[in-house]
Amino acid sequence: MDGERAILLFTSRDREGIIYAITEFIYKNGGNILELDQHVDRENGQFFMRVEWDLKNFRIPPEDIDTAFSPVGRRFDGRWRIEFSSHRENVAVFVSKEDHCLREILWRYKLGEFPMNLKLVISNHPDLEDIVRGEGIPFFVFPKNRENKLEQERKELALLREYEVETVILARYMQILTGQFVNRYPNRIINIHHSFLPAFVGSNPYRQAYDRGVKIIGATSHYVTEELDQGPIIEQDVIRISHRDSLEDIKKKGRDLERIVLARALTYHLEHRILVYGRKTVIFR
Amino acid sequence: MDGERAILLFTSRDREGIIYAITEFIYKNGGNILELDQHVDRENGQFFMRVEWDLKNFRIPPEDIDTAFSPVGRRFDGRWRIEFSSHRENVAVFVSKEDHCLREILWRYKLGEFPMNLKLVISNHPDLEDIVRGEGIPFFVFPKNRENKLEQERKELALLREYEVETVILARYMQILTGQFVNRYPNRIINIHHSFLPAFVGSNPYRQAYDRGVKIIGATSHYVTEELDQGPIIEQDVIRISHRDSLEDIKKKGRDLERIVLARALTYHLEHRILVYGRKTVIFR
Amino acid sequence: MDGERAILLFTSRDREGIIYAITEFIYKNGGNILELDQHVDRENGQFFMRVEWDLKNFRIPPEDIDTAFSPVGRRFDGRWRIEFSSHRENVAVFVSKEDHCLREILWRYKLGEFPMNLKLVISNHPDLEDIVRGEGIPFFVFPKNRENKLEQERKELALLREYEVETVILARYMQILTGQFVNRYPNRIINIHHSFLPAFVGSNPYRQAYDRGVKIIGATSHYVTEELDQGPIIEQDVIRISHRDSLEDIKKKGRDLERIVLARALTYHLEHRILVYGRKTVIFR
Amino acid sequence: MDGERAILLFTSRDREGIIYAITEFIYKNGGNILELDQHVDRENGQFFMRVEWDLKNFRIPPEDIDTAFSPVGRRFDGRWRIEFSSHRENVAVFVSKEDHCLREILWRYKLGEFPMNLKLVISNHPDLEDIVRGEGIPFFVFPKNRENKLEQERKELALLREYEVETVILARYMQILTGQFVNRYPNRIINIHHSFLPAFVGSNPYRQAYDRGVKIIGATSHYVTEELDQGPIIEQDVIRISHRDSLEDIKKKGRDLERIVLARALTYHLEHRILVYGRKTVIFR
Repeated sequence: MDGERAILLFTSRDREGIIYAITEFIYKNGGNILELDQHVDRENGQFFMRVEWDLKNFRIPPEDIDTAFSPVGRRFDGRWRIEFSSHRENVAVFVSKEDHCLREILWRYKLGEFPMNLKLVISNHPDLEDIVRGEGIPFFVFPKNRENKLEQERKELALLREYEVETVILARYMQILTGQFVNRYPNRIINIHHSFLPAFVGSNPYRQAYDRGVKIIGATSHYVTEELDQGPIIEQDVIRISHRDSLEDIKKKGRDLERIVLARALTYHLEHRILVYGRKTVIFR
Repeated sequence: MDGERAILLFTSRDREGIIYAITEFIYKNGGNILELDQHVDRENGQFFMRVEWDLKNFRIPPEDIDTAFSPVGRRFDGRWRIEFSSHRENVAVFVSKEDHCLREILWRYKLGEFPMNLKLVISNHPDLEDIVRGEGIPFFVFPKNRENKLEQERKELALLREYEVETVILARYMQILTGQFVNRYPNRIINIHHSFLPAFVGSNPYRQAYDRGVKIIGATSHYVTEELDQGPIIEQDVIRISHRDSLEDIKKKGRDLERIVLARALTYHLEHRILVYGRKTVIFR
Repeated sequence: MDGERAILLFTSRDREGIIYAITEFIYKNGGNILELDQHVDRENGQFFMRVEWDLKNFRIPPEDIDTAFSPVGRRFDGRWRIEFSSHRENVAVFVSKEDHCLREILWRYKLGEFPMNLKLVISNHPDLEDIVRGEGIPFFVFPKNRENKLEQERKELALLREYEVETVILARYMQILTGQFVNRYPNRIINIHHSFLPAFVGSNPYRQAYDRGVKIIGATSHYVTEELDQGPIIEQDVIRISHRDSLEDIKKKGRDLERIVLARALTYHLEHRILVYGRKTVIFR
Repeated sequence: MDGERAILLFTSRDREGIIYAITEFIYKNGGNILELDQHVDRENGQFFMRVEWDLKNFRIPPEDIDTAFSPVGRRFDGRWRIEFSSHRENVAVFVSKEDHCLREILWRYKLGEFPMNLKLVISNHPDLEDIVRGEGIPFFVFPKNRENKLEQERKELALLREYEVETVILARYMQILTGQFVNRYPNRIINIHHSFLPAFVGSNPYRQAYDRGVKIIGATSHYVTEELDQGPIIEQDVIRISHRDSLEDIKKKGRDLERIVLARALTYHLEHRILVYGRKTVIFR
């Protein structure tokens, strides 16, 4: 799977002949399907599909595929987007003081696990500057308080524009983004929340879990929407705890979860495996 | 471990010498410790202990152990209770229409997994009568509505008294018990809630989970308190779902969780492995 | 999904245009695809596909679909089979003395979870007769020893023919079937082995696991081949144990695994979600 | 738990009065028990215990505790050792080319999760030198082949002596150590094997797992003995895979397991929570 590939993400009302029409489009233009997955939400009659094909012998140049596909897509009143495997998404990471999610991302990034360009890291604290600069990645600090939040966000947004950032990862960024920021990157801001959502929304979820006496803790990666911790869930995982685990132990176990869950969510995102509908996600993997 | 055993459950402020004092009491009276577990909640300075010993050569007759232990227990201002392995708890099961938890309990009961006497089954519906009577267990129906609830509960309570019931299992009983009932059996009513509490409190948790788009569902067994689904959690477990799972699939997967989680919680309860403090549990296993 | 549906399971060398050709066949004959999944084994260049479609408006009668599809299938040198949702597989269950897997199957069968007809139960011991006959299902005993094994198997095979059995479930059947039996039901005999295969092949896997000191035990459901415990794996699951678990505890935990794993494997089989290639399986779910 | 603590690990034939005698020793000398756990292997009648106590008011100086305890220990024919929380074990890490386990150890080490001194890293390849030296840790390369193995090991052993190393971690070290090495560090060499042992002993376990078509893969951390991959298991964990996972995907998933499993095993070791008996471990946590 080394050559250039196209990925079509498509959704529409469920109707007969969609898969046929799409595979016909690909086949008749010389494309070889590498992966195809589809899903129908029977409750709502909605159709979802992801198809990935080899462009080696495909007769339509990449820049024209969307236009060429339009008649097919419109026939089914669909919404779609077309991605290319050679395109590496420009990504910004937001952090605060905790380094475990940042380190995980940096390590996997260097290993080549993430098809992205890590353009810059933004923080509200200077603490993690050395780790980031040590990897040759620009690091910016925008301290925030109630008064300057909107202003600082505007500067951050300007920076993201400058670096042509397409996806934002909140790697334990302990600030709530306002609507002006969130709405600029719909389904393009990935957060890791350190609880099994929807349990323990908001701050100090491990403390909440500890006080409630749960026997299992979790971590949740989701797209950020204006409503706190309510965005579409991408991935979750859990680990068992017991009365023996102090709050500190829980945090330690939780850190390991957070790293893995965020990494998985980011992979699905970068490989264009996620279709959002309403507040839910279809993950084609 | 076939002979008669005593089990001491003990809690007090944490102080030096508790374990020594308790093991001295057992050893000097000829008891052989089979299992000992302890825990200190460092945040609150509370000590918990469970110790199980062989009574074969124990010089204090069972009925006098509590009195004999009192000076030790009082020295540490402790609260404790002493249980005996030969005592089989009298249990009532409450059900509605769904049979999976009931069947699981009946099957394991017959296998000898639960050291209890299943005295009777109470339901608000007649549906499961055949299953219960087929096992030679009395079955009673108390249909409930807003008007007759308190009155029906009083009849149920009278029946529980008559059968000398000590523990009540709500095996998917779809009625909320009132305070008059709950407060008669403090930490003696075990419920299975079909969600990963505290997520999805209340009715239709699978529907809630489906609508929220979570990637993992759970089941929670807890002691019932007056506040709905807020009692001390005994056991939880989870299973992964995906967008492919319809609401019906989720219910099916959930049923398997519920059965296992309730069975585990009941085992811990019947083996006297649970110490409740506040709204949390220490499970010694 | 209540109407009649057809399911095509297809495999061939991977080539361009397969999905297109198959979906064209379905669409042009008036079928509505309900579910489509495909997989390419890149290492071997093998293509696999499962597609399920609604027959309501399909213009080819069920009995002619295979013939009508042949030109498509042959174009790709494929192997395929076509199944129908209305067909309920005839199933025989083999048991010995342990009842937990049998009870699980019976319970789910009554719930309607398994699209099958449970025609008969065969055992080498009379112990479980009452449970089976209580459900109105014929029960036969064929005790086996080294001398009479082949002869008894022949009687069993005759009985399976008589009852038109298509699938055999070994629900903790503690006898090894010989080649004469196994080869009559290729990929149609489902076993549950009480270990995480390939660890602990053969007898007493829980004892083996206990002696080896593993920290996790498992259960494996697989198709039976002539080589003991080497058939294609359908489903596995695991549970954590510790030094506290006695051999008896391990067996108890294992029973819960076995029931769930066997039930899942049987569901995949009955819903025609399994494609076997070599000693591996593709499970489309 | 900030002050100095003593940890006693004790094992003997199971007899009455052991816990009493040990807690008496601690209490009468002014020690406050912080954690006590015990286990009896009923099958073999063997007793195991770990007790941790505060030394603040303990009247026996640390260097005399072992001698002072001897009469108690000998009364029960026990084997024991006494550890101190202030003692940080000297550790060497052995690596080859893969960096994920090494990075995990370095990161947690810096976070303060491991009470140890990472004295040096030894490799048979120079690849990971920069990572190690970047952290200010000495790095040595001893390339090995069939001819020079024993000689190189002798140099490694000399180096370990020089650095007063007490525990060796094989963090994906792809060389088999000979008996001369292994026997110098009994229960003090921790390996991470990238399979769910005892499945897939030896080389290329992910390839073996892939070829066998298992549905779950695992990782195992164990003490190294002379027999390859047969040492006492400390910790295991697993993750689900499917036919969709290529060998490369399996390796990726496996890496995440290995890191976590090795980190847990190392923590148990450094906190003196492991008692080995035969080829099994008791993990007191």
